Amino acid sequence: MRPSGRAPDQLRDIKITRHYTKHAEGSVLIEFGDTKVICTASVEDRVPGFLRGQGQGWITAEYGMLPRSTGSRMGREAARGKQGGRTVEIQRLIGRSLRAAVDLKALGEFSITVDCDVIQADGGTRTASITGGYVALADAINHMLETKKITKDPLINHVASISVGVYQGTPVMDLDYPEDANCETDMNLVMTDEGKFIEIQGTAEGVPFSPQELQAMLDLGKQAIDRLIDKQREALGA
Amino acid sequence: MRPSGRAPDQLRDIKITRHYTKHAEGSVLIEFGDTKVICTASVEDRVPGFLRGQGQGWITAEYGMLPRSTGSRMGREAARGKQGGRTVEIQRLIGRSLRAAVDLKALGEFSITVDCDVIQADGGTRTASITGGYVALADAINHMLETKKITKDPLINHVASISVGVYQGTPVMDLDYPEDANCETDMNLVMTDEGKFIEIQGTAEGVPFSPQELQAMLDLGKQAIDRLIDKQREALGA
Amino acid sequence: MRPSGRAPDQLRDIKITRHYTKHAEGSVLIEFGDTKVICTASVEDRVPGFLRGQGQGWITAEYGMLPRSTGSRMGREAARGKQGGRTVEIQRLIGRSLRAAVDLKALGEFSITVDCDVIQADGGTRTASITGGYVALADAINHMLETKKITKDPLINHVASISVGVYQGTPVMDLDYPEDANCETDMNLVMTDEGKFIEIQGTAEGVPFSPQELQAMLDLGKQAIDRLIDKQREALGA
Amino acid sequence: MRPSGRAPDQLRDIKITRHYTKHAEGSVLIEFGDTKVICTASVEDRVPGFLRGQGQGWITAEYGMLPRSTGSRMGREAARGKQGGRTVEIQRLIGRSLRAAVDLKALGEFSITVDCDVIQADGGTRTASITGGYVALADAINHMLETKKITKDPLINHVASISVGVYQGTPVMDLDYPEDANCETDMNLVMTDEGKFIEIQGTAEGVPFSPQELQAMLDLGKQAIDRLIDKQREALGA
Amino acid sequence: MRPSGRAPDQLRDIKITRHYTKHAEGSVLIEFGDTKVICTASVEDRVPGFLRGQGQGWITAEYGMLPRSTGSRMGREAARGKQGGRTVEIQRLIGRSLRAAVDLKALGEFSITVDCDVIQADGGTRTASITGGYVALADAINHMLETKKITKDPLINHVASISVGVYQGTPVMDLDYPEDANCETDMNLVMTDEGKFIEIQGTAEGVPFSPQELQAMLDLGKQAIDRLIDKQREALGA
Amino acid sequence: MRPSGRAPDQLRDIKITRHYTKHAEGSVLIEFGDTKVICTASVEDRVPGFLRGQGQGWITAEYGMLPRSTGSRMGREAARGKQGGRTVEIQRLIGRSLRAAVDLKALGEFSITVDCDVIQADGGTRTASITGGYVALADAINHMLETKKITKDPLINHVASISVGVYQGTPVMDLDYPEDANCETDMNLVMTDEGKFIEIQGTAEGVPFSPQELQAMLDLGKQAIDRLIDKQREALGA
Repeated sequence: MRPSGRAPDQLRDIKITRHYTKHAEGSVLIEFGDTKVICTASVEDRVPGFLRGQGQGWITAEYGMLPRSTGSRMGREAARGKQGGRTVEIQRLIGRSLRAAVDLKALGEFSITVDCDVIQADGGTRTASITGGYVALADAINHMLETKKITKDPLINHVASISVGVYQGTPVMDLDYPEDANCETDMNLVMTDEGKFIEIQGTAEGVPFSPQELQAMLDLGKQAIDRLIDKQREALGA
Repeated sequence: MRPSGRAPDQLRDIKITRHYTKHAEGSVLIEFGDTKVICTASVEDRVPGFLRGQGQGWITAEYGMLPRSTGSRMGREAARGKQGGRTVEIQRLIGRSLRAAVDLKALGEFSITVDCDVIQADGGTRTASITGGYVALADAINHMLETKKITKDPLINHVASISVGVYQGTPVMDLDYPEDANCETDMNLVMTDEGKFIEIQGTAEGVPFSPQELQAMLDLGKQAIDRLIDKQREALGA
Repeated sequence: MRPSGRAPDQLRDIKITRHYTKHAEGSVLIEFGDTKVICTASVEDRVPGFLRGQGQGWITAEYGMLPRSTGSRMGREAARGKQGGRTVEIQRLIGRSLRAAVDLKALGEFSITVDCDVIQADGGTRTASITGGYVALADAINHMLETKKITKDPLINHVASISVGVYQGTPVMDLDYPEDANCETDMNLVMTDEGKFIEIQGTAEGVPFSPQELQAMLDLGKQAIDRLIDKQREALGA
Repeated sequence: MRPSGRAPDQLRDIKITRHYTKHAEGSVLIEFGDTKVICTASVEDRVPGFLRGQGQGWITAEYGMLPRSTGSRMGREAARGKQGGRTVEIQRLIGRSLRAAVDLKALGEFSITVDCDVIQADGGTRTASITGGYVALADAINHMLETKKITKDPLINHVASISVGVYQGTPVMDLDYPEDANCETDMNLVMTDEGKFIEIQGTAEGVPFSPQELQAMLDLGKQAIDRLIDKQREALGA
Repeated sequence: MRPSGRAPDQLRDIKITRHYTKHAEGSVLIEFGDTKVICTASVEDRVPGFLRGQGQGWITAEYGMLPRSTGSRMGREAARGKQGGRTVEIQRLIGRSLRAAVDLKALGEFSITVDCDVIQADGGTRTASITGGYVALADAINHMLETKKITKDPLINHVASISVGVYQGTPVMDLDYPEDANCETDMNLVMTDEGKFIEIQGTAEGVPFSPQELQAMLDLGKQAIDRLIDKQREALGA
Repeated sequence: MRPSGRAPDQLRDIKITRHYTKHAEGSVLIEFGDTKVICTASVEDRVPGFLRGQGQGWITAEYGMLPRSTGSRMGREAARGKQGGRTVEIQRLIGRSLRAAVDLKALGEFSITVDCDVIQADGGTRTASITGGYVALADAINHMLETKKITKDPLINHVASISVGVYQGTPVMDLDYPEDANCETDMNLVMTDEGKFIEIQGTAEGVPFSPQELQAMLDLGKQAIDRLIDKQREALGA
């Protein structure tokens, strides 16, 4: 039995609130149950140095957690003077995942920065960040189209992300914190609406997992991603 | 005329939402119009080194802004590797202000950290942080009383904060961003429910201000603080 | 009684020594009793990025204390790798205060950096820094006029600063360290020769202060500022 | 055709040289073709703070590249004052992978740090680091057994790592730099001698990959891991 | 001819002012002509971790320059967030030199930190720092003897330092800035009152120097050191 | 007797392996007995800002030690976020020394960075770095001549370096770690093939040394340098 009483193939309540704050070109509050992340997408009309003059754009991401988004207060990274290894890992993952949703050539020489800030954490903050970040990104791109910064939509597919794992011997989807802290295996999947993979990151913190368990997790992941992409479509009114 | 159409002695809509997130002992969303700040108060049963063994507690504060809480995206302080001078100034002000609300001896050897994170900025983030931070602090202290960590309420007075300024020659209260960016003088007041001062910070970025203007601003400030403390009382159900 | 035996409205001995070191365009040793600060003003013919091409100048300030300027040795900020919060607060205050003395348009595209380095501390280092920094700034501007870098004097008023406070129930001016460490209220005023305010920063570390106490402190401050500006005029031979 | 002329299922020349430097308890030079990494394992008789008093040990890893291990010189991370995001990601991966080889309870309150320093890079530095790091770790554990620091071997399985990818439409194993820079998909696998997974990290930098491609890569990976573990066994004389 | 008109074996005016500031156990202003350095020695009753419990003391040094001690303003190291390579080199040299003046066993478990802060620079700041630092150190040790912290004088010899160089083909002593910036060879000597060497640091920035030139510089250095030690003795009233 | 059984004027086995790694324009493994350093020289066609447009080149050096190059593991400087004082001192010494081998005008607007990374340390890492760094530098310059980046050889002399010291009362050359850790005096010499000095750095960590001891060390140093330059010539096939 899962601590939350959910079935193995049951997602938490997923909510996507667009236009959550007023300044950003795209601004989304995404909730995976008690995990709440503000995702904003900010457009700038320049690209990083290594891309200058190549006629293409860039998508990057930054990630942070409010100090008391967690059960006990974490030190503030700005005060400690550096981002921790986990933060760096997560924001690189988000950036790579969202870049795969966009034809960077079609984007032109613009940068979009997706900031994912966790207001409340209960497991799955990186998967919520990618899934919500996609919607913020889509809104920012819509804003660029409406303001004629670009004329052709550079989005090439939907991107969503889910965690799957093996909890007490059973493969489950969308791990919450009590599951995440006690599962044998934890895998994060980032996939497209065509069922293709953008990222697979599986880690056996305890016991190594077998090819059979891998397959079961991949199957669950596929189902979850399909439902998340439906939620994205619904939110975007598409 | 004020850009917002408000009267000189008119506050923006003030909203205080308690229990905004679930982990912190005190968690408040405060809104001064479009300025929105999450204030959490976190209790720890130890004090900083310089106070150890002295039988008293400590209140400290940290302040941050989400990168896109503002009109154009600001660099993330955690990524830049240091907190800027403005951030340091503000969080020290919040900390001093809230310490003045508490009898630190009565608090005992506990620390309370008040984190003020700006979700959306439209002027007055520091005054909203102090005013909302007080409510989060009060909730955290209530939690300590309920869980028997302390037996006597160490709160000694209400603390609230407001900005006042001279905008196009007229003293006004509760400056929003368009006013803040264009006023001659900007003063932040932190006061108690007895009409006493905890902090006065007045700055003439442009033209120095006269004793008469100072007095007019202090009078407006007093009115605003009284109304904010009413809002705090109402929120706390007192 | 004040620890030093001074009357409540009595300043410490104030000494201003110009041309204290040889390299800077303005170089002043200012002494408020045992508090000694070297203030140098350095001229550069460029402005920070955010002002480039706007036809105006900039004044900025930096503040430091020699490690053993104080009773017990403080860690060197350069060795610790960052400036502390108090340092940042003070240098921003000095910078804002001195900018109010100058018509930045008339200064043209030059920057003047005022460095205030405390050689010996006994309370009031920030007020001494502003008061002495003004003289160094005036000397640097004179140097610019003499060397024809500018043709019109951009100084628009004198600026001086004093601390006032409530010590054992009595309002006093120019607090030294034993008073500063034990007073109920500490307020730093920055004012012009016309009796107008540039900065008011009052803090009740212990007991909040009343409007009456505020008024008494403002009255003392006005007297002190007038005397300090006389000292500045005398030093500058005006 | 692969740039190196290798068959899709062909590894580069793998060499493992033990006792490469004299100070470390385990010291290995591992070569995957032109990729050369020095892996040292250092034993300390204490554990990080979060594990103290729990009767278990810890394995951690650090990773670095000599500035000119690459085609053009990279800035030295020590000089820039921080480890880059890629470095952090890789060293966390190495640490997690090697911890999965050891029963940390059986290790007792010792820490082993595995340093992987790339002398020459030609693709696959992280997989070489894990594969060679395992041998250094095994040597350090043998040293602990010989010096009676521990009495029971805490190694529970072999761990090795390989990259697999899709290069010009063909799944291949052990990508070198020219392949790595141009492949559609890059996946790093960390597996045990029982064919179980410790880590799967697959990234589609360009085109998302299908479940069929994933399966083909997993099959190649399994073959490669088996051969690498044979090389480890041979090197260790087992 | 030297730019200053001095003879090759002529020192600048050397002045040593003791008790220059009031807080430090030893506080000296040393002047080598226009080079002015404040040297303070601060006593603490604990030693660095690596010496704890070994019954011996430690002498360390820190060095800094006020930003406008030089012809053009240097960035403040505290603001840049790190001490430059030159600073680190110099303060390590000062520390090693002064440690050679003291029997660290006889000092007991005390640390003395000698801070050398350059108020005005005109060449030779490191040699002035060592020569003045010795006097501050002697005063701090006298203070320890007077306050009975130690009962036996741990000073074992005088230590002074001078620069010698080859300027336009002629060996000269005590280089000022115009010479230092244009000399072929620059050597700093640290010697005892018995004519023995503590440090020799010679650098040929331009043309390598011959054994004959080395000998000529050593001879000049010996003369200069003897005169500096006379100045130290005179200042200390010995 | 020396711990190694060597005669006082006996070098350790010196080995110089060119083309040690494949990417750098110059790449050398130098061994002074058990001390092993990889020296690479990297050419870039730009100079640091302070030299831009002056028609001359620059040589700089960086130094590092692998964490377990030493008897007990040292913290990795990249992880600690700064280079230690010893590292900074050494890399500045290497840079100055190698610049003295080159006519920077003849080099033209190119930079050469010599990276010296210690793989295994047993005393004398800085002297090995300079001696091996020279060979890497010569190879990089040869590469520039061959690829027609420059047309005239800018090398003006050989540069090599050796440590000499007084060990148990006897002057010795080429100190290994057991000697280095226990000698009274340690001096590093950098000299040219004409027997001239580029750097002399002598330090009496314990007892000051006499002019006679200095002379004995200089004599030994001269012999050692001559033999090292022979080794360099032999390696370079000259």
